[in-house]
Amino acid sequence: MAKQKISAAPSVRRLPSYLHTIRQLQKEGGEYISGTLIARELNLEPIQVRKDLTITGIIGKPKKGYPVEALIKAIERFLGWDTVQDAVLVGVGNMGAALLGYEEFRRHGLRLIAAFDKDYKKIGLRVHGVPVLSADTMDIQIRSFGVKTAILTVPSSSAQETADLLIKAGIDAIWNFTNVKLKVPEHVVVQKEDLSSGYAMLCVKKQAKDMEENDTRPK
Amino acid sequence: MAKQKISAAPSVRRLPSYLHTIRQLQKEGGEYISGTLIARELNLEPIQVRKDLTITGIIGKPKKGYPVEALIKAIERFLGWDTVQDAVLVGVGNMGAALLGYEEFRRHGLRLIAAFDKDYKKIGLRVHGVPVLSADTMDIQIRSFGVKTAILTVPSSSAQETADLLIKAGIDAIWNFTNVKLKVPEHVVVQKEDLSSGYAMLCVKKQAKDMEENDTRPK
Repeated sequence: MAKQKISAAPSVRRLPSYLHTIRQLQKEGGEYISGTLIARELNLEPIQVRKDLTITGIIGKPKKGYPVEALIKAIERFLGWDTVQDAVLVGVGNMGAALLGYEEFRRHGLRLIAAFDKDYKKIGLRVHGVPVLSADTMDIQIRSFGVKTAILTVPSSSAQETADLLIKAGIDAIWNFTNVKLKVPEHVVVQKEDLSSGYAMLCVKKQAKDMEENDTRPK
Repeated sequence: MAKQKISAAPSVRRLPSYLHTIRQLQKEGGEYISGTLIARELNLEPIQVRKDLTITGIIGKPKKGYPVEALIKAIERFLGWDTVQDAVLVGVGNMGAALLGYEEFRRHGLRLIAAFDKDYKKIGLRVHGVPVLSADTMDIQIRSFGVKTAILTVPSSSAQETADLLIKAGIDAIWNFTNVKLKVPEHVVVQKEDLSSGYAMLCVKKQAKDMEENDTRPK
């Protein structure tokens, strides 16, 4: 079984925040941007930023930093965000609706062309401009769109079954917001989004801060 | 400025999925669980799993693995999930509503006691059982609850302003779902949730898979 291991995963995860920050700083002008400045904005170590950015193939110039335009292009190219990627979303509950309205995605080349749901009250609506189609027509619609990427926001109880249908229709990349570990064939990639991970980080940061404050409190 | 750096961040992020998997496997019985089995379930390397678990202070026994009960307790204690943590949520849009209904949180000791919104059509409602209160009363309510943790799901345009109010009311841990890099005083921790990170991972995995398939395709 392929491990789908991305050795630089934490670096990849940070790239979108670099992109966001660099675009913000770009507005303030200047042809070059330093790793130190990006680091300061994001509260990271400069050496970490420089290391992360090397995965995109770009190298900064000593004293000057990175050429802004080229840096943005390099990150986008590395992530494949320089071309438009069509995707569908399945399951228009709260999370699904939230993702349909998530503006950032458009800037990342992600175009949500349709959503699917079983609920007849939702079918025919547009949610944040995206048409909601009947889940019964999913197979034929996905084939006719020729779309390869799907966002899965159905209830966990129907996650595997829906994934099976999606894959049969030609989907080979699933962004999985359910808490089910999907079983998929070799050629399909899955990114499982686990909101608990972020909460774990918050908890551990808070504990670290509490300990730090206990240490520095006057005795 | 404190860096709020958690050196073992990727390990911490994986702990919730370990917890989930171990609990699933616990149902199948057995007093011990091996790192190899956890690794297989989650498609990780066994050495990675063992390394990640050491941060919780637990050590497996050769040939037997980890005592299941103690392992669950160790992870929960490390994350602070063995005690109930009250929190409020601000901004009952789609994302806010999705988080109010996210069942996993309850199992992690996170108890959402109230939500706040400005919209009079929402005030007074219960969303997934959580009462929606007026944002105008936020300061006094948070003080009277004595709650320290807040989930921020307001529009980005009011993110900083809302965070300032929350901190003034006594909040010292913010789980930030907006795309604003919040400016907060030294004693406050922030965990910024960036959904684009997950999409970046999906894209990079997909590219890696496509390359792999091109390599192995018969010439």
